[in-house]
Amino acid sequence: MNVLIWNEHRHEQQDQEVGKIYPKGIHGAIKEFLQTDDIHVETATLDEPDHGITDERLNKTDVMLWWGHLAHHEVADEIVEKVHQRVLEGMGLIVLHSGHFSKIFQKLMGTGCDLKWREADEKERMWVVNPSHPIVEGIGEYIEIEKEEMYGEHFDIPAPDELVLVSWFEGGEVFRSGCTFRRGHGKIFYFRPGHEAYPTYYHQDVQKVIQNAVRWAKPTSRTFSSYGNAKPLEDIKAKS
Amino acid sequence: MNVLIWNEHRHEQQDQEVGKIYPKGIHGAIKEFLQTDDIHVETATLDEPDHGITDERLNKTDVMLWWGHLAHHEVADEIVEKVHQRVLEGMGLIVLHSGHFSKIFQKLMGTGCDLKWREADEKERMWVVNPSHPIVEGIGEYIEIEKEEMYGEHFDIPAPDELVLVSWFEGGEVFRSGCTFRRGHGKIFYFRPGHEAYPTYYHQDVQKVIQNAVRWAKPTSRTFSSYGNAKPLEDIKAKS
Amino acid sequence: MNVLIWNEHRHEQQDQEVGKIYPKGIHGAIKEFLQTDDIHVETATLDEPDHGITDERLNKTDVMLWWGHLAHHEVADEIVEKVHQRVLEGMGLIVLHSGHFSKIFQKLMGTGCDLKWREADEKERMWVVNPSHPIVEGIGEYIEIEKEEMYGEHFDIPAPDELVLVSWFEGGEVFRSGCTFRRGHGKIFYFRPGHEAYPTYYHQDVQKVIQNAVRWAKPTSRTFSSYGNAKPLEDIKAKS
Amino acid sequence: MNVLIWNEHRHEQQDQEVGKIYPKGIHGAIKEFLQTDDIHVETATLDEPDHGITDERLNKTDVMLWWGHLAHHEVADEIVEKVHQRVLEGMGLIVLHSGHFSKIFQKLMGTGCDLKWREADEKERMWVVNPSHPIVEGIGEYIEIEKEEMYGEHFDIPAPDELVLVSWFEGGEVFRSGCTFRRGHGKIFYFRPGHEAYPTYYHQDVQKVIQNAVRWAKPTSRTFSSYGNAKPLEDIKAKS
Repeated sequence: MNVLIWNEHRHEQQDQEVGKIYPKGIHGAIKEFLQTDDIHVETATLDEPDHGITDERLNKTDVMLWWGHLAHHEVADEIVEKVHQRVLEGMGLIVLHSGHFSKIFQKLMGTGCDLKWREADEKERMWVVNPSHPIVEGIGEYIEIEKEEMYGEHFDIPAPDELVLVSWFEGGEVFRSGCTFRRGHGKIFYFRPGHEAYPTYYHQDVQKVIQNAVRWAKPTSRTFSSYGNAKPLEDIKAKS
Repeated sequence: MNVLIWNEHRHEQQDQEVGKIYPKGIHGAIKEFLQTDDIHVETATLDEPDHGITDERLNKTDVMLWWGHLAHHEVADEIVEKVHQRVLEGMGLIVLHSGHFSKIFQKLMGTGCDLKWREADEKERMWVVNPSHPIVEGIGEYIEIEKEEMYGEHFDIPAPDELVLVSWFEGGEVFRSGCTFRRGHGKIFYFRPGHEAYPTYYHQDVQKVIQNAVRWAKPTSRTFSSYGNAKPLEDIKAKS
Repeated sequence: MNVLIWNEHRHEQQDQEVGKIYPKGIHGAIKEFLQTDDIHVETATLDEPDHGITDERLNKTDVMLWWGHLAHHEVADEIVEKVHQRVLEGMGLIVLHSGHFSKIFQKLMGTGCDLKWREADEKERMWVVNPSHPIVEGIGEYIEIEKEEMYGEHFDIPAPDELVLVSWFEGGEVFRSGCTFRRGHGKIFYFRPGHEAYPTYYHQDVQKVIQNAVRWAKPTSRTFSSYGNAKPLEDIKAKS
Repeated sequence: MNVLIWNEHRHEQQDQEVGKIYPKGIHGAIKEFLQTDDIHVETATLDEPDHGITDERLNKTDVMLWWGHLAHHEVADEIVEKVHQRVLEGMGLIVLHSGHFSKIFQKLMGTGCDLKWREADEKERMWVVNPSHPIVEGIGEYIEIEKEEMYGEHFDIPAPDELVLVSWFEGGEVFRSGCTFRRGHGKIFYFRPGHEAYPTYYHQDVQKVIQNAVRWAKPTSRTFSSYGNAKPLEDIKAKS
């Protein structure tokens, strides 16, 4: 199984504090807990040629993770088109935190994907509302994060196919933090936590959810649908 | 349009403090804001014969509201069967607060309908997560209730057909507070607030949601489905 | 209530047979059964300036209907952007038949929206699978259309929020023919029938569904969500 | 992984024609294609003591399959209660064909579960409408069965969490044939085909779907939710 972690990778280089938390980048931190004997992980970042998303690489990717924030507009439209096409063909996509505003997520959702936010070192509790979902296998009743950026409703997304986690924030807001969607043959999981200024990706339960999500989003092997002009009726009647 | 408000009506008679808040009973308080020129409202309570739910009354009811708490087990199974049947035939049902544990709600859901609770005078904020839903027409971004009983996840219900409101509680919990379900031809709305010890049903936004829900849950007029042995194939082929 | 029917209006002018069926255009035929005392209907077509979709017109439209087929690519991207924005703000959208491949529907869905089709004068039966939905109020168990173009699964859309109608076709296919979606504050209904070569829009049940759908898709009046940087935590704490 | 196939096992003994098709019973036929190195399969039938569903057996079962038809009313209510409880605790349940009318399925759905039917040797085509779902992994665009009993809409179930397969029947009907539901911690799959008078369970694609469904329905390992009176607010505040 091939996983590609895409990270904007700007905060870590521009902001010393962030760089200290994620010395190998957010992608590097995620890679460390995703890699196993049966999962081959590669990483790609915005400033590489083609943002590190070459056709060859994309075509062999089973599940892609996406973290972006400052520079969504710098992601080339043609790359977004290619990633979109791959999702519709079956590639899984895990969209992390501020990736909610990425071109690829907006294109897949068809909505603005806007939300409320506040940087105030708030406690977050993500409650499991779909306890038999494989994405929360091994997770308790909730995941508590000591300090995180707040994301609040209304989150302008289509109603998720499955709502898995709902966040509570100290300051008075709630948020649909774990949402699944299917688009074409691809499975998508949006997962809220992971502001660059907090060590959230070292949190064991956050890691566990991402590990589970990657396995859940793996493409199924099946015959693709045929579209367009179907067999003439005569053939079908003859066959009957 | 005929609305029937069913209330257990025990707390108000047994507990002086509750009686002061709802001198005409919870059903009486709800009746006052539901009654309009085009909505005829009646009420029924547990200790009336047949719990006030006679066949004649039930058959003409378009939407029923249900509030119960202490005495769910005292509601006769045969009455529950009749209400269940009427919902499947198209009667709307609004289940309020601790009605989550009523026999009728459990029977319609197929699950235990359990949840967490705490009586600690907590602030509640119900956030709108489905802003175009008619049930929240005229409501702002959230409804704030100064003090209420806490209800927390996991709420053991099937995934609602539509999730409309999600509550935040001071103490750290969240709750799916406004949920729609369709069962048979009937529309069901579960609405969380309304602990007997708080004047919640005098809250203008809570009233507005219940008013909207009653109109939303009104039966549609349509031909009923036929079930069982369908016309023989020959007839159909001949007809084609 | 203001309704705008948008029609490509090419088939009716280019193909004599189609012109005979819809002498006033498909938009003209739909206008006739939609107009009532409380519904003001206007029409717009591709070849008008701005495709007949001026800002002024769009801003006052409550529900828009969309029929297109041959010339989806001729619809200007900036017009599509504006319609998309209006849907997210709350305008209802009814997408008809081959409008499944329109830019606006694809943009709202985030998928390819492809399907199978066959022109073979097949009988279609649209079965009601959500009998209490207001869109099928007054409709029997199914709608039968003597001859229509076949549309078959897989229909490459996100799982609809509500599945209302499923079609059966003589030649062996099924299709999710009546689907609701919510995007932003807007309600969307996709409704399959209406190939230009058949007099489908004169079918009483097809008309009834479209009439119902327009009322269902009407925007609700509510406060809009605020997005972006939320109030600082201090204010909120002080307020508590 | 422990699988328990429950079969009414009356048709096979009472009707010689059925007995010829399924000499080891329907349960025996299913057992043969479900058993693998990692799946231990047992069977149980109506006429065994406790219908073969002892506490010991039930407690270790991961996924149960249910086939019944003639004698739903003979299944003891207390056994139904136990199976229901086990599903809510996480046991998967695959309900087959006429099991739609079983007490356990009705109890989990909360609706009548009625449908149309016709025995007329009709061709059935089950179309995949959710192509990335693991239950249809390895399946083409549709499954064709030469002759089957017809089941037609309206199927009186709650809207499924996921709709995977929709059937077309020669005589003019459609049916939601593959539906998933979650109730409590348990995953449920309803799968239409399998009338006793046809050799449907020898059909390779039907077998593949059931094999996939059993793996999909396997319980996840997780901490159970706590319900009831939650920790006092003071503790939580102190902890914050």
